Amino acid sequence: MYKIAVIGATGYVGTEIIRLLVQHPDAEISAVVSKSFTGQSLSEIYPNLRNIFDETLMDMDLDRLCEISDIFITALPHDASKEIIPELIKRGKRVIDHSAAFRFRDKNVYETWYKAAHGMEELLDKAVYGLPEIYREKIAVSNLVANPGCYPTCSVLGIAPLIKNKLVHLSNIIIDAASGVSGAGRKSDLPYSFCEVDENFKAYGVANHRHTPEIEQELSALAGENIVITFTPHLVPMKRGMLCTSYLNLKDDNWTNESLYEVYREHYKDEFFVRVLKPGTLPETKNVSGSNFIDISVNFDRRTNRAIVVSALDNLGKGAAGQAVQCMNIMLGLTETTGLIHPAFYL
Amino acid sequence: MYKIAVIGATGYVGTEIIRLLVQHPDAEISAVVSKSFTGQSLSEIYPNLRNIFDETLMDMDLDRLCEISDIFITALPHDASKEIIPELIKRGKRVIDHSAAFRFRDKNVYETWYKAAHGMEELLDKAVYGLPEIYREKIAVSNLVANPGCYPTCSVLGIAPLIKNKLVHLSNIIIDAASGVSGAGRKSDLPYSFCEVDENFKAYGVANHRHTPEIEQELSALAGENIVITFTPHLVPMKRGMLCTSYLNLKDDNWTNESLYEVYREHYKDEFFVRVLKPGTLPETKNVSGSNFIDISVNFDRRTNRAIVVSALDNLGKGAAGQAVQCMNIMLGLTETTGLIHPAFYL
Amino acid sequence: MYKIAVIGATGYVGTEIIRLLVQHPDAEISAVVSKSFTGQSLSEIYPNLRNIFDETLMDMDLDRLCEISDIFITALPHDASKEIIPELIKRGKRVIDHSAAFRFRDKNVYETWYKAAHGMEELLDKAVYGLPEIYREKIAVSNLVANPGCYPTCSVLGIAPLIKNKLVHLSNIIIDAASGVSGAGRKSDLPYSFCEVDENFKAYGVANHRHTPEIEQELSALAGENIVITFTPHLVPMKRGMLCTSYLNLKDDNWTNESLYEVYREHYKDEFFVRVLKPGTLPETKNVSGSNFIDISVNFDRRTNRAIVVSALDNLGKGAAGQAVQCMNIMLGLTETTGLIHPAFYL
Amino acid sequence: MYKIAVIGATGYVGTEIIRLLVQHPDAEISAVVSKSFTGQSLSEIYPNLRNIFDETLMDMDLDRLCEISDIFITALPHDASKEIIPELIKRGKRVIDHSAAFRFRDKNVYETWYKAAHGMEELLDKAVYGLPEIYREKIAVSNLVANPGCYPTCSVLGIAPLIKNKLVHLSNIIIDAASGVSGAGRKSDLPYSFCEVDENFKAYGVANHRHTPEIEQELSALAGENIVITFTPHLVPMKRGMLCTSYLNLKDDNWTNESLYEVYREHYKDEFFVRVLKPGTLPETKNVSGSNFIDISVNFDRRTNRAIVVSALDNLGKGAAGQAVQCMNIMLGLTETTGLIHPAFYL
Repeated sequence: MYKIAVIGATGYVGTEIIRLLVQHPDAEISAVVSKSFTGQSLSEIYPNLRNIFDETLMDMDLDRLCEISDIFITALPHDASKEIIPELIKRGKRVIDHSAAFRFRDKNVYETWYKAAHGMEELLDKAVYGLPEIYREKIAVSNLVANPGCYPTCSVLGIAPLIKNKLVHLSNIIIDAASGVSGAGRKSDLPYSFCEVDENFKAYGVANHRHTPEIEQELSALAGENIVITFTPHLVPMKRGMLCTSYLNLKDDNWTNESLYEVYREHYKDEFFVRVLKPGTLPETKNVSGSNFIDISVNFDRRTNRAIVVSALDNLGKGAAGQAVQCMNIMLGLTETTGLIHPAFYL
Repeated sequence: MYKIAVIGATGYVGTEIIRLLVQHPDAEISAVVSKSFTGQSLSEIYPNLRNIFDETLMDMDLDRLCEISDIFITALPHDASKEIIPELIKRGKRVIDHSAAFRFRDKNVYETWYKAAHGMEELLDKAVYGLPEIYREKIAVSNLVANPGCYPTCSVLGIAPLIKNKLVHLSNIIIDAASGVSGAGRKSDLPYSFCEVDENFKAYGVANHRHTPEIEQELSALAGENIVITFTPHLVPMKRGMLCTSYLNLKDDNWTNESLYEVYREHYKDEFFVRVLKPGTLPETKNVSGSNFIDISVNFDRRTNRAIVVSALDNLGKGAAGQAVQCMNIMLGLTETTGLIHPAFYL
Repeated sequence: MYKIAVIGATGYVGTEIIRLLVQHPDAEISAVVSKSFTGQSLSEIYPNLRNIFDETLMDMDLDRLCEISDIFITALPHDASKEIIPELIKRGKRVIDHSAAFRFRDKNVYETWYKAAHGMEELLDKAVYGLPEIYREKIAVSNLVANPGCYPTCSVLGIAPLIKNKLVHLSNIIIDAASGVSGAGRKSDLPYSFCEVDENFKAYGVANHRHTPEIEQELSALAGENIVITFTPHLVPMKRGMLCTSYLNLKDDNWTNESLYEVYREHYKDEFFVRVLKPGTLPETKNVSGSNFIDISVNFDRRTNRAIVVSALDNLGKGAAGQAVQCMNIMLGLTETTGLIHPAFYL
Repeated sequence: MYKIAVIGATGYVGTEIIRLLVQHPDAEISAVVSKSFTGQSLSEIYPNLRNIFDETLMDMDLDRLCEISDIFITALPHDASKEIIPELIKRGKRVIDHSAAFRFRDKNVYETWYKAAHGMEELLDKAVYGLPEIYREKIAVSNLVANPGCYPTCSVLGIAPLIKNKLVHLSNIIIDAASGVSGAGRKSDLPYSFCEVDENFKAYGVANHRHTPEIEQELSALAGENIVITFTPHLVPMKRGMLCTSYLNLKDDNWTNESLYEVYREHYKDEFFVRVLKPGTLPETKNVSGSNFIDISVNFDRRTNRAIVVSALDNLGKGAAGQAVQCMNIMLGLTETTGLIHPAFYL
């Protein structure tokens, strides 16, 4: 049994990681750490865990944690990360991090969009972007995996086959996305209160959302040239789930729904967690909520010679905790799907 | 008091028209007609109307209806329309219709997208597209007003200032939209049942939704040349509300959020129901639900030189019943806002 | 036009009062007062009010307010009330208050349940409990009306006919109730955040909710003897609406659904806002949400000789803002239904 | 690996059974049967199952099914049951049935409340009520287990300790309950459509719900004397989850929250799936949704000397599919919690 420490365990991503790990046959949770709730049982904060995981939340005690843990899954504010992650790496521990700090190859991009000094530049070379469908081999041998953002996972996997196969013009890519509210984290801010959110739909972060450069970095890597996109997120009155609708201008004009489908099917034929839907079938978030799947449909708009890609995942699943466990499995040499083969909730 | 007959009164649009007319100071409902519920009280079907409007639903009795009514608001299946609307027009009655039949100037567009013979071609010349912000004068004198679809109202008003002022390229317009569930009407189909819809978000009608040609017709009229767009609707787990996010490539590259805002403010300066939001403020459906307002925000994406327009309305309000009453006011020579100056629900 | 000042205008009850008053033909809002948002436009905080009510929020300036206002509707914390309400009464102004301070005839009950010194005892004699269906005449001549709590309004009106007519045993009354989330006010506390509330149902305040003594006071007054009840509220994942299911043991055993219905119909025959539903029909919150109606159904459980009363209202409507406006109409000698004859939202 | 056939697999209970069984280490699904969808893949109907369970739905072929299956889990209309269940029993197969037919010891109770001839009376003697916390030993050796209704499971387990220990008067038991919408099954009826249900709360089946006699039968068995109750269900706008608030008059008057808690803790000390909450903590459906847990809180209302019990479970989990799997484990001699130790969704 591998020993996993979850640092920052009381957020929504943290508790989803716990939910997955308690069902994982080859991993056990060695420690749950929370600054705000040290000394409390995790199941007092998340009573769904009663009788399943009643461990007490520890404070950040690096020596003790390193003694009892093989892998660290971290979800921390930037300043706390600076104190902990470099130290963990120095001690030879392996880290899967949920912050944005290690997602960017270029620290300037981070500093520009996150308006903060990076301060851990020396680790950027070691860091691997934790998208297994693209970086599986690097993840396997990495000590520092940056778990991708939910929107980047959803949109990049959604349009990767078109970019990689050079089927589209790169100058006119538009990604229109929508997320459930848990994407904002466990927050008591008024704009996320029930009465403000329920029966409401809105756009946010128009032309300036921080996931934009992350998507661009990964699309550019796939294309081999620099890509600038337009990305607009929206907030849906539901707890979980994310859906991206992406628009790309096709180079050739002799496509059909079927031929585009074949491109996708071929591209993802070995990927268990990527379900390419048959022509005429569209993703719905309920089919992925609670799971590590991403559902993708590629559609041909013959009137405008455009590909419309619809991709859906659970922002807490394949968009966060599920993907972290997938990366963990790869890092540990386990079968990649271990502990992740359960269907979405649907209901 | 003007006498209004509502034909097809038991759908969601019908009941919203009733909700508005019972509060209208200069109109009274002369008759409510429903084939399926003849003889029942409307307030048995919609018990929110108890003590407010308990009238009995009539069958379709043209002679009687024409005797007691000045204006007819119709929401009928195509075949029923064919029997009734031409007859009403022949008798000199004025009609505000909610079907698609009279929205298209070209009957072929209707027949292609709706896969049905039109059969009332002779009325197309008389019909006016009921978007007051564009066709106010024609509506005033028309006997046959085709109330626009909800998506066309939301998107066309949203991007009209950019098209009309020739600020954008016409070849790359993408409209990504989302609607509350009442847009589908009062339906007992399984896909609209609570357990299938709640906590779910999905796209539908990708590359083939019937509102596409209606949007194109109106944008083309504004531009003075033919426009083909991509339009993708989504379904949001909420009852009311619609939001369109539209992407347009700007011709010039020296725009700012503020200068685009000024274009919009100027364009809509005399329109009470169009609220152009200041830069930095975005529409939310809760601010328009239950009202006849449309909220619009225009945003400059300087990285891609694109305008991102976000527009929101109530699909049952400005997207249907509210707009019908606004047209009715215009046709009757009443102050256009009569009976429509109430704030959205917010809660 | 009567001039109404709304003090504490930015809470959910405050904004609902504004929503009603802007549509009221005989009242105008002379001032909106908010300590936290002084100087901002109310429509910045509630953008649904844009173009409808864009007035600026004032600070608490008693002299100025008294000059421009006839009636004060107050929704304030207890300490703020102490500074303002006695002063308003001294100056001869009329007040409709939404706090609990003036709802109790006995200050000890207030102090026991609210765990605070009352401090305005001298006004208790003047205060009238603002339930028009019971205290209409007193409200008409009062300068200080205590608007009832939402649960007391819903349950007391629901079971008044049984108590008043001495049809039930008084020792075994159980009221099981449920409320939408807006009943908690505009709060950013974590337990009211969307992800914590949505898809969740729970009881709260079991055996100790503060509305218990208020219900008991009013039921006791109706019975002419002291009544102790059990009252349990629940939280429903919806914004508006409240429903009480009350259980009372009948004295006689020869009742039917019809004969109980007749008792209710007779009792409420002159009450516009109380809709007694026919046997076989049950209240639903969507039929009252947004309105000032309360829907009541009385049911006979012949197996246990018990009356089961189901009553529903909008916690922000008849349970708060609507009832305040109803009281205001009575105090001003207006037709009681003025500005309140609109149907519930349903959708 | 035990082979399980699921007959009636396409309802919400059926699909939840599938969701549980695909994760069960000692059971495999030998067949999924559906009359309406024969020949389709289950994952076409429930696309959350794609890549997890793509088996084709069979028609009802008894010979074939008996050949490949050890245990049958049935969820069928009454008439279909009559053709199948007696035959399965005759062939020596073991059945866990979800209909009401085998829940009643007295066929007359079934026939009175369900208004249908029973027609399988001869099996009633063999049938065991599938509530493991009460009938574990009988379930272990039974060939015909009647899986209890969701309301009976929730309320009977909630108040069993008070009845069994003879702490309460039996003449005044009131159970007020609320359920998520999936309790109504996969239905396309208008009253269950999203727009009719969302933002709405209502009571239904007042004084006549079919779960009443089932609850009474089980409470009477616990008490050793006949009990008649009042039971009122409500519909909550959420997909999953059920909560019962039960009111019982205590015989003694020297109870405290703590001493009642001790009674419950002792009563359920060996039950993994029954979580008795500490005084001051109340159940919430989100803590049980998706799991096989039932959370119970017992509260002392000292003012009325009443016990108020709040119990919560997932109507599809411990209230249906989870309990079926728990029974299956017992019947097969497996550890009772096998395949059921996963936390509720919470989010």
